[in-house]
Parts: sequence; C-alpha cells; structure tokens
Amino acid sequence: MDVRACLFDVFGTVVDWRTSVSREFAAFAQAKGITGVDPVEFAVEWRKLYHPSMEEVRSGRRPFTLLDVLHRESLLKLVARYGVNGLPDADIDHLNRAWHRLDPWPDAVEGLTRLKKKFIIAPCSNGNIALMVDMAKRAGLPWDCILGAEIARAYKPTPEAYLASCRSLALAPPNVLMVAAHNHDLKAAKSQGLRTAFVARPREHGPGQMTDLQPDRSCVDIAARDFVDLAAKLGL
Amino acid sequence: MDVRACLFDVFGTVVDWRTSVSREFAAFAQAKGITGVDPVEFAVEWRKLYHPSMEEVRSGRRPFTLLDVLHRESLLKLVARYGVNGLPDADIDHLNRAWHRLDPWPDAVEGLTRLKKKFIIAPCSNGNIALMVDMAKRAGLPWDCILGAEIARAYKPTPEAYLASCRSLALAPPNVLMVAAHNHDLKAAKSQGLRTAFVARPREHGPGQMTDLQPDRSCVDIAARDFVDLAAKLGL
Repeated sequence: MDVRACLFDVFGTVVDWRTSVSREFAAFAQAKGITGVDPVEFAVEWRKLYHPSMEEVRSGRRPFTLLDVLHRESLLKLVARYGVNGLPDADIDHLNRAWHRLDPWPDAVEGLTRLKKKFIIAPCSNGNIALMVDMAKRAGLPWDCILGAEIARAYKPTPEAYLASCRSLALAPPNVLMVAAHNHDLKAAKSQGLRTAFVARPREHGPGQMTDLQPDRSCVDIAARDFVDLAAKLGL
Repeated sequence: MDVRACLFDVFGTVVDWRTSVSREFAAFAQAKGITGVDPVEFAVEWRKLYHPSMEEVRSGRRPFTLLDVLHRESLLKLVARYGVNGLPDADIDHLNRAWHRLDPWPDAVEGLTRLKKKFIIAPCSNGNIALMVDMAKRAGLPWDCILGAEIARAYKPTPEAYLASCRSLALAPPNVLMVAAHNHDLKAAKSQGLRTAFVARPREHGPGQMTDLQPDRSCVDIAARDFVDLAAKLGL
C-alpha cells in the first residue's frame, strides 16, 4: 500500500455523538426547565433522522443542503414530537450546535497526532465545514484540512463524496485510506478504489450494540482496535 | 470588532514565493543541466502569468480551473519561451509543484500559532487545496481548514471567493478578518463586509519593491508589521 492521506468518518468513528449530544441536551433541558425527556433517547431519536434527511439529497429530490440545516430541521420535528414548544430561535440554534461540541473517543487525539506525522489527515464526513472546524478546535483534532460532503456537495455513501475528497488532495483513490467504524462506509469507499481501515467503536450505540462489532473482511484492508493501534499498524 | 476567524492571503503574505520558486528552479536547472536561465527571472516571469491565467476564469471565458492546472499551463509557455525543450511530464509536474514547496516568512508560523489560540485560521488563497495542504505540512502552517478559491470555485478578488469562505465557517463577513500584504485584496474583502488587516511584505518582489509598502487606509482596519505583531494587536 502506498497511502499518502487518511480520511476519517467522524460521527461515531472520531467522536462519541451519543454521549455528547445526551450531555448537551441534559444541560439544555436543565437550563430551560424542560422535564420528562430522556436525554439519551433524545440523542438517539435525533440521530435516527440523520440518514432520512440526507436521503432527500442523495436521491436528488432536494439540492445539496448543509448538515447544520438538516440537523436543525430534524431538531424542530423532534421538539414538536416531545411537546417542547416556544423555544426561541437562539435556543434552537444553540442546541443544534450540540453537534459542533462532540467529545472525541479517548484515543482519537493521540492517534491522529501520530498519523499526522506521516500522512495528510482530514475528515471525510457528512458534517459541514463549520461543524467540523468548531468540533476540531474544541476537541483538539489536528486535521490538515476539512474534506467530505460540503466540498463534494454530495453525501456519503454517494461515490462523489469520496472521489471529490481524493481529487482535492490530487491523490488517486489507492493512495487514500478511508477510516471508519462502519462497514457500509468502508464498502462504499472500497468500491471507489480507496484503501480502508476499520476501527471498532463497540459503544457508539451504547451497551448492547449489535452492529459493526467486527470488520467486514470483504471490504476492509486494515482492522485496528483504536486510532493509536491504527497508527502503529501504519508504522507510527 | 467581533472577529472569530482570520483568513489569509498566502502567496506573498504567508510565504515568500519569489525566493522559494527561484531556489526550486535553480535546483531543477542544476539537476537537469539547464543553463542560461536566471532563476529569479524565471520565478518572476512565471508569476507574471498568474493573474492573466485566472482572468480567463474570472471573466467567465473559462470554467473554474484549479491553480495547479493554470500554473502548469504557464510553466509550459515559459519553458518554451526559454528554449528548454524535451522535459518529460514527470519533470514538469515536479517543477510545477515548486508552488507546493514555498517557505514561510520568518514570523508566519509563530504568528499563526498564536492567532490559532483565539481564532479560526484558514487560507483564503487562490491556491487549490492540494497545494495549500502540501505547503502547510512542509512549512508547519497550522491551519484549521483550507478555504479560498477551490471551495468557492471563484478566484479572488471575485466577491464569491471571500463570501463562500465566510459561509463555510457559518460566519457573517464582519466576524471575519482578511489578512493580506496586498491592498487590492483587502479592498475587495472590505467591499464585501469583511474586516481587514494589512501586513507589510516589503521584500515580496525583492529589493526595490515600490508597491504595497503601506496600508491603504481607506480599506484597512488594522496595520501590522508582521504576523506576531498582528497577534499582539488582536490581544495575543
């Protein structure tokens, strides 16, 4: 393998969205006197609207729309469903930016810092640039640049999301390693010629997670326990 | 001023293209046995083709084309003009990537590192993402992300180059500070509502430089001696 750049899925792979969004919602609910909504359930329900919202774009029914906008539309549906009414726009905006304030998995910063010594490292996420930059500054993620859906104007697993990210680095897909905790993401990357690394995140969905516990060997070139292990497997 | 992000012109403002491209050409010429071409003249002539090549895009006569491609077309004209014939594509590509290997001005890395503590820092350059990433990794420029012409698909001083960069950060133009050594760049940014900082680079064009020695006070909010001085003026 002649890998020059590592691209990363972010939600679930680099950061723990479930715990972080739950924490953000709990703090918000306490500040606003909202009761009777379970924060973990709220985070999980919000995330459940993620793929359907992007599917509108992927299917061509809707022009490309930034994830911050899709997240906000989903949030409005959710607060209505839970009967949380009358929140001012500024509060909705603040809560929506919970996705900008996600905590990294414990190994992420150290692993990325090691990988950065030898490789270009960048997110190839469905998150938009502002979201990725805010998250990185807060969490200390040392990206070289921000690639992914916004620069491609296409959501993963659409091929263009991966290919546009490779083109922006002037690299051929075999010189790019896609890193994710989700086999479906790696399968899509592999089908476009990228190399792939699976990093298990068995608690992304909390205790009792049943999916993506093991790499799918049909589409995974490297399997690693975490980012530090990945760096070691890549000679760092 | 409520500045959240600092955007930087790069060629001339962050890096010393004239000295660096001269050095690259001199090394190339020596390795290939090319004689009779003054390296500084070669660098200056190459740079003279920069604005005319982008003007084809700005005028709408040509669709958006990455700077690496424009640089290469200019390089082919130049080697023909100097009678340097028969270079293989790989050599042309290597020489073209001289623009990926530019050295920063002595204060640039320290100033950017300070500014990064408080602000989002990103290039808003006409250089493409691969060029900016390669340069940053070699020179140690600690960008948070890469903005500018490629994400805007428009070349400065077209308004869209500045506005798309602000939008990608989800910031209004008055919350963004454009930093450049060129008054025309700052004038264009100011006209779109950005804040502006002038950093003098009186040796960009070598000894005897007559342009951009002083800030144009009609479009400059902050004038600084160098990036460390800029950081100090912004409270860092």
